[in-house]
Amino acid sequence: MTHTTSPPQPPPTLLAATGTAPGELAGAIMGQIRANGASFVQAIGAGAINQTVKAIAIARGYAAPGGQDLICTPAFQDIQIDGQARTSIRFKVEPRG
Amino acid sequence: MTHTTSPPQPPPTLLAATGTAPGELAGAIMGQIRANGASFVQAIGAGAINQTVKAIAIARGYAAPGGQDLICTPAFQDIQIDGQARTSIRFKVEPRG
Repeated sequence: MTHTTSPPQPPPTLLAATGTAPGELAGAIMGQIRANGASFVQAIGAGAINQTVKAIAIARGYAAPGGQDLICTPAFQDIQIDGQARTSIRFKVEPRG
Repeated sequence: MTHTTSPPQPPPTLLAATGTAPGELAGAIMGQIRANGASFVQAIGAGAINQTVKAIAIARGYAAPGGQDLICTPAFQDIQIDGQARTSIRFKVEPRG
């Protein structure tokens, strides 16, 4: 019997867009935090970043009654779309600790 | 000789707008953190929120070489502008710890 080990998987990243509903994204963020201890959201452009920030504020409200204080750390991330260099923002959301 | 105590002052809040330069706002955030241990930024609308998030990402880069890991916590804040109720986002930025 042979045992193989899986290569480490990158954490799944949620993609936010201008049309993303902040409440739904907040629920997805909470799901990732429950499953993995942290959530990652990628947003490109002002509209997507706006929805992501609202979602994080909503998720903070979801987590607070359970005594969890969620924090976020945004960072620039260079990506390629259709061969064009674009700058996105990648948010990590996690409990303060 | 009479001594008086000042009433506690609310922390000063930086106001972000669509036209705010993220690098300049990042510098102001760092100045507030040095002076007060935390910084507060208020932003209304997608453009202002976008500039604020970029500024926080830049400030994280400013702080990192000194061993400081900056985190942020966004929250909704209801305000009145010209008698109209508007929703703003208030960001607290502070060192992790």
